[in-house]
Amino acid sequence: MPLPVFDAAARAALNDRLTEVAAGVDAAMDRLLPPEGGGASPRLTEALRYAVFAGGKRLRPFLIAASGALFDVPADRLYRAGAAAEFLHTYSLVHDDLPAMDDDDLRRGRPTTHRRFDEATAILVGDALLTLAFQVLGEPETHPDGTVRADLVVALAEAGGAGGMVGGQMLDIEAETRGEAQDLGTIGRMQRLKTGALIEFCCRAGAILGGAGMEARTSLRDYARAVGLAYQIADDLIDVTGDAAAAGKAVGKDAARGKATFVGLMGVDGARAEAARLMDMALAALQGFDGRADDLRRLAVHVVTRDR
Amino acid sequence: MPLPVFDAAARAALNDRLTEVAAGVDAAMDRLLPPEGGGASPRLTEALRYAVFAGGKRLRPFLIAASGALFDVPADRLYRAGAAAEFLHTYSLVHDDLPAMDDDDLRRGRPTTHRRFDEATAILVGDALLTLAFQVLGEPETHPDGTVRADLVVALAEAGGAGGMVGGQMLDIEAETRGEAQDLGTIGRMQRLKTGALIEFCCRAGAILGGAGMEARTSLRDYARAVGLAYQIADDLIDVTGDAAAAGKAVGKDAARGKATFVGLMGVDGARAEAARLMDMALAALQGFDGRADDLRRLAVHVVTRDR
Repeated sequence: MPLPVFDAAARAALNDRLTEVAAGVDAAMDRLLPPEGGGASPRLTEALRYAVFAGGKRLRPFLIAASGALFDVPADRLYRAGAAAEFLHTYSLVHDDLPAMDDDDLRRGRPTTHRRFDEATAILVGDALLTLAFQVLGEPETHPDGTVRADLVVALAEAGGAGGMVGGQMLDIEAETRGEAQDLGTIGRMQRLKTGALIEFCCRAGAILGGAGMEARTSLRDYARAVGLAYQIADDLIDVTGDAAAAGKAVGKDAARGKATFVGLMGVDGARAEAARLMDMALAALQGFDGRADDLRRLAVHVVTRDR
Repeated sequence: MPLPVFDAAARAALNDRLTEVAAGVDAAMDRLLPPEGGGASPRLTEALRYAVFAGGKRLRPFLIAASGALFDVPADRLYRAGAAAEFLHTYSLVHDDLPAMDDDDLRRGRPTTHRRFDEATAILVGDALLTLAFQVLGEPETHPDGTVRADLVVALAEAGGAGGMVGGQMLDIEAETRGEAQDLGTIGRMQRLKTGALIEFCCRAGAILGGAGMEARTSLRDYARAVGLAYQIADDLIDVTGDAAAAGKAVGKDAARGKATFVGLMGVDGARAEAARLMDMALAALQGFDGRADDLRRLAVHVVTRDR
């Protein structure tokens, strides 16, 4: 299979689509959150909007939009599901940043939610976003078919709960507390729970909304697993070799924390080779799809070649 | 309408049903949580089970079971929905007890989850339970009809989110921080969000699972609102007039915190009269139901006559 050339035109096409999806998802999130100055507590509303509209790339909604496009799912439903995924992602960032967890003061160059407001507000912002994610998926507007709405809810809960993101964060904290040496298998397992599960949900959501058959679902699952792991390895590489200005965030954080990473265990060259191998796997998983999968193809290449 | 006599026989019948439902819901929760020693993180599993199996009365699952019984919904489905409500209730207690929130060291005579484990674990326990609640409601076992499963998810999210429990907790914290004098309207609104919304969900869940018509739904909503408010007023009364040994918890906490309560604003006699009036309203709302509503009737009387 000839790999798509990731030339300037392909990069521009990907950027256009990323911008388009981000705008659609941001508009959906704006409608789904309590209005500015409104809600039960205006301060809670302000904090919710501060956490959500923080300049994220909306990569997870992009995966939902690109997977759903394979089955011609209408954009408004994909943006609603994308909003749910982004609410869940944001909740996990807000809680992970708390002093009792990773204790981060800055995210994307701005004070984290508990630094800008306070800890109680940040805990409640996370709780509200987590709850809202399930509400949005369960509402009839997300899909006329009730069964599918419930299926989406269960899929997101599986990705987010004790056997997904929450479990992964717990393993991460336990590893850091114990300070034990970790091997590739342990880090890989943690990554798959902490960040991989939601990426896999996103591709699965497109398939669920599109009523995809088993073969297409399996292909998308393989794609998601390869891209999710490649994304994490690329993140580790940026932290080691990256430039803070290009990355838009502090680099060298993992080493400073003594955190075990893919790069630490495989070396820079080994990690680069592994990321490239995963990109090939992701592209191979899409072999059965037509040109509607080009967004997913471009994203797989982008994930391992990005510098931030 | 003659009020049911709440004699020794009625009290015994209520206690038997409370025990029966608690056993059924505890068994369901035991099956739905990761098995002891299992799950992604055994420590997280241990903390989840510590938080959930802490001797709660399972009042919210009882409301689901008693409402669903009006429409002959099978017990196993009611227990599953009850497990979801109790997971949500437990998550809210674990997060509310955190140092950044109400900072409580003890709950039901045992160390709170963050005291027994640590803050990070308690935050993650809450997040996992909140997620699990939605998963359980969305799964096919809760009800064969997919649309209803999604409806349950949305109803729980409405009760739990920024316009429900989370919003109520935020208002509570803001009021305590500001230390402003509060009137009955403000406290009533906060109570309706913080504790009333979940009680209302429970009665609504029984109606949703039972495919109840509009009239029955409205009656159950009126019942739930009256019982929810009566429950809170009774709680305030126990805190002021109660005996710590009988209540099984410290009393006088609200006054020590300078917290505005119904009793503080209405006086003990006024609060007692209001609770009795609400009990009458709750019973009146059930007028259209037959003997299958006796559990709900007994509970309404119990709520305002209990001493703990």
